Amino acid sequence: MEKINFMKNGVLRLPPGFRFHPTDEELVVQYLKRKIFACPLPASIIPEVDVCKSDPWDLPGDVAQERYFFSTREAKYPNGNRSNRATGSGYWKATGLDKQIATSRGNQIVGMKKTLVFYRGKPPHGSRTDWIMHEYRLVTAANAPQKKNFAQVKLYFHSHSNCWDSQFIRHCLAINYQLFYS
Amino acid sequence: MEKINFMKNGVLRLPPGFRFHPTDEELVVQYLKRKIFACPLPASIIPEVDVCKSDPWDLPGDVAQERYFFSTREAKYPNGNRSNRATGSGYWKATGLDKQIATSRGNQIVGMKKTLVFYRGKPPHGSRTDWIMHEYRLVTAANAPQKKNFAQVKLYFHSHSNCWDSQFIRHCLAINYQLFYS
Repeated sequence: MEKINFMKNGVLRLPPGFRFHPTDEELVVQYLKRKIFACPLPASIIPEVDVCKSDPWDLPGDVAQERYFFSTREAKYPNGNRSNRATGSGYWKATGLDKQIATSRGNQIVGMKKTLVFYRGKPPHGSRTDWIMHEYRLVTAANAPQKKNFAQVKLYFHSHSNCWDSQFIRHCLAINYQLFYS
Repeated sequence: MEKINFMKNGVLRLPPGFRFHPTDEELVVQYLKRKIFACPLPASIIPEVDVCKSDPWDLPGDVAQERYFFSTREAKYPNGNRSNRATGSGYWKATGLDKQIATSRGNQIVGMKKTLVFYRGKPPHGSRTDWIMHEYRLVTAANAPQKKNFAQVKLYFHSHSNCWDSQFIRHCLAINYQLFYS
């Protein structure tokens, strides 16, 4: 059995072309769910950052790479479930319909994904930018314990490249993960 | 220094979410160029397969995953440079304009990418499918040694998902790499 040392000085180093590029299912099942239940994660690749404490371009990491975070959420109102999505320069606004995340092997729904767009300025008159955020939440059984104010999101910069060019998704991709129970 | 064994029984095993998902630049510079010049590759991840000897759905590997190949090319005519792109069930047809592949650090052009679509039947009356192939070639200095009939292509199945959903690129993605000098 050949062993390849992918770690050097505590930092994960992969050969060119290899990267952390998970599917939605992997994110929800392998990382988000384990994070919620305080289980060990497959890899320590996702740091904890409050995504709304910074503007998307100021989030830690390389804006030219995909960035992934676990982030806690702050309620907009003390007794409500709406999230406070304002940042220093603008705000995140939901768009479109939530999408179900199903397992690849069957039709089990494991999570939901919401898409948000970043606007500069103050609502409702902000100016739309190309920063996109995906917010993931886990779908659990009806009698599962409920937790509040902890959600999962993914951010990236949506360039106007040809959809067939996978590079547009990786360019300036900022991922922030929080956990949210509906 | 912590060592993580990513190899088991000779097979590369990565944690969930990690995969071979190279940029166009990485493909051309780290793999294609090294293959051309018979230099060691960063990882033995790309097998040699003649992409036109099989229909895209019959290529080796998992159709639900990205697949990468190095493949030799057969000239359509003995003295010409046009490639014979016919397979058992159809043919590959070029579409759109070739795209330049530039380095991320500067504006150096390192390669070109051509997009082709797979048609069932015989040209020019074949029926279009959703199988897409990207053909990569290396851009070299004018006085660099020329080689013939060795090209690089990438195949994938283009589903009609939302462009923001990176899964559509990975789903049924079949990659075939050949090297071509123009």
